[in-house]
Amino acid sequence: MEPILIQGVLLNQEVTDILIDHQRIAGIGNNLPVPANAIRIDGARLAAFPSFANMHTHAAMTLLKGLGSDLPLQQWLNQSIWPAEKHLDDQAVYWGTKLACLEMIKSGITLFNDMYFLLPASAKAVAQMGIRAVLGFNIFGDGDELTDQTFLRLRHEVEGAGNLVRLSIAPHSVYTVSPKGLRHCAEMSQKYGTLYHIHMSETQREVDECLQQYGCRPYALLERTGVLGLTRGRLIGAHSLFLNPEEIALMASHQVTAVHNPASNLKLGSGAGFLYTELRNAGVNVALGTDGSASSNNLDLIEAARLMSYLQKGVRQDPTVLPASELLQVATLNGFKALGIDAGTIAVGKLADLMLVDLDNLAFVPNNDALSGLFYAAHSDAVDTVICNGRILMRHRHVDGEEEIIAQARRHARNITNH
Amino acid sequence: MEPILIQGVLLNQEVTDILIDHQRIAGIGNNLPVPANAIRIDGARLAAFPSFANMHTHAAMTLLKGLGSDLPLQQWLNQSIWPAEKHLDDQAVYWGTKLACLEMIKSGITLFNDMYFLLPASAKAVAQMGIRAVLGFNIFGDGDELTDQTFLRLRHEVEGAGNLVRLSIAPHSVYTVSPKGLRHCAEMSQKYGTLYHIHMSETQREVDECLQQYGCRPYALLERTGVLGLTRGRLIGAHSLFLNPEEIALMASHQVTAVHNPASNLKLGSGAGFLYTELRNAGVNVALGTDGSASSNNLDLIEAARLMSYLQKGVRQDPTVLPASELLQVATLNGFKALGIDAGTIAVGKLADLMLVDLDNLAFVPNNDALSGLFYAAHSDAVDTVICNGRILMRHRHVDGEEEIIAQARRHARNITNH
Repeated sequence: MEPILIQGVLLNQEVTDILIDHQRIAGIGNNLPVPANAIRIDGARLAAFPSFANMHTHAAMTLLKGLGSDLPLQQWLNQSIWPAEKHLDDQAVYWGTKLACLEMIKSGITLFNDMYFLLPASAKAVAQMGIRAVLGFNIFGDGDELTDQTFLRLRHEVEGAGNLVRLSIAPHSVYTVSPKGLRHCAEMSQKYGTLYHIHMSETQREVDECLQQYGCRPYALLERTGVLGLTRGRLIGAHSLFLNPEEIALMASHQVTAVHNPASNLKLGSGAGFLYTELRNAGVNVALGTDGSASSNNLDLIEAARLMSYLQKGVRQDPTVLPASELLQVATLNGFKALGIDAGTIAVGKLADLMLVDLDNLAFVPNNDALSGLFYAAHSDAVDTVICNGRILMRHRHVDGEEEIIAQARRHARNITNH
Repeated sequence: MEPILIQGVLLNQEVTDILIDHQRIAGIGNNLPVPANAIRIDGARLAAFPSFANMHTHAAMTLLKGLGSDLPLQQWLNQSIWPAEKHLDDQAVYWGTKLACLEMIKSGITLFNDMYFLLPASAKAVAQMGIRAVLGFNIFGDGDELTDQTFLRLRHEVEGAGNLVRLSIAPHSVYTVSPKGLRHCAEMSQKYGTLYHIHMSETQREVDECLQQYGCRPYALLERTGVLGLTRGRLIGAHSLFLNPEEIALMASHQVTAVHNPASNLKLGSGAGFLYTELRNAGVNVALGTDGSASSNNLDLIEAARLMSYLQKGVRQDPTVLPASELLQVATLNGFKALGIDAGTIAVGKLADLMLVDLDNLAFVPNNDALSGLFYAAHSDAVDTVICNGRILMRHRHVDGEEEIIAQARRHARNITNH
């Protein structure tokens, strides 16, 4: 792959050059030694930021976007989502995942942490789009389907699709997986060194039912079953919305990453009170996600970040909570870090995952403050260029193959909804 | 002005033609009698919606966008906003307003309800951009500056600038205007038949201080001073965030319009608990605003609508509150209605204020539901075409004069912030 030189770009309020070589950021500054074959990008009127990590989603659900909006949760699942999902096949998941990757690249995301089914089809789509992903093998009940043989075959298929794709183990939740299944997944996660990706404490009802059924709250159940110990430093708790101080302490001591999905939590009526300050103060790693686009309808991390910031400030009635510089870290570094990927900041030696935003976009004009513009005014259309692992995935908002992805996604969406 | 025929556009889930003539929607259907000189717009892959009314803003504050983000309110005003505002002159307000109009047109807004100063400069900008506006003459203290002579001269200058621009009387708030000033404004508003635009109950502190100073809450103060009676059907209460049931009853009986500004309320830490359901059930007209772009940093009604919907669903933990069809009415018709403008729906005989959105934008793909796509997935970049009063203001996202507006806004922003 050719090296890339980004010339005269705004980075941390200064204009500089950025050199990318061998997948990594090779230099930042002026008068860098530039290889003769380097691709040159004119950075005038652009600002560089690390690209985003979308830490909880169900990518292929793009095909179900907009079905049954504004319905109560159970009716939405029973009438709209589950009947359509029955008709999903490899081809639908493949094109649905491609559409998701396209939308994510267009909003500056270069890494996503997924949970769905028909993973080899997703893996193929991800590899072709050039984005990073961790695909979670969704487990329900006792997890009997998760044998060594199945795991190894699936890992071979998923990770064989491309060098930026990895497999994780993803028990769905404490209300759909038995304690035995939760523990079995944790043992397998430890044995094979995978992430453990699970929906946690998304609704008050989930917590109430856990208390009723097991006499303890969801994170306490994970501790009691040995899951937290077996998955130390590798558990991704999506949502983690309803927590008490004891659970926050458990999360901190077991190095859990909490993934906030503000759009989904709001749109589905789950709640608005994510305990960011409490989690951060306890030392819990907090990252951001969009959830699937059937839940909150787009895969836009700028929107998720703005919602998170606005909710923290608005619900706590304090405009100083979660300033933009800290929000940037939540939306980037905290995600990459949780998945053990050496990206999320623009610094020499780091993997080259970054985006260039267009400072002529009205969101930034009259250009008083680029970081504030990104999080408090811009939409994804301000993202001009996206680079992942040292490779250009989007330039001037063009991604290769866009028209075919749209056409195929429409065809498969019609197939699964016209029943 | 030439008639316009929009051919084969998606409107309320059906494909149809829309004919616009003499500023109004002249026909909807197939086989309409089309004047020979009509401009034809191909509506394939577009959906038509009424354009938005931005019911509370301070347009020229675009120049201050991004100054002092994440500071506490008083520090933000003292250190960032007020020092910069001292340097605003006619030229700065003119170009700042043009930038605001440009951004609003680009997000599908054709009407805004403003409150600021140096109004003749704003009026000239508005008239040149072709958008509708009501510009509020900001009053403080006892309002001594609001004499018949001043009012009439200002009205002549503002309304003389163009036929879509009107003047209103805008006492700033109950904490910056005396009871005498509030009443004087109301008498002048009644005498001249103008709107009465005021910040109301934006923060808990405002309510507490009103109780302490006057022994009653803000809307009760407006009743006691005779303001509500004098301004029946013409009072626009921006924010109206902290209300009790007695105030809501007062608002309903005096036909007050409450304007919710969710982004501003969240970002400034004012609060997240707008009482939409309670206001609607009492019969109060509720409309939407962005506030000035120094407070919440963009002038995007799609974002404001999504935030409002998400907050109502999330804070009340009920996904069925404020469905998309009702949200559309809040963002469009309720605003136009409050200002007495016969637009806000796409129906024969109505003023032709509408927008066409691009169904190939990824927010809508795979195109299961256009209305859900608009409010739960799209950003302003999906707005392709904007028509105001029968005139095309934007086509394929191009607005005339954009480059000069950006350059001049930058120049004036530098002038006012470099002190």
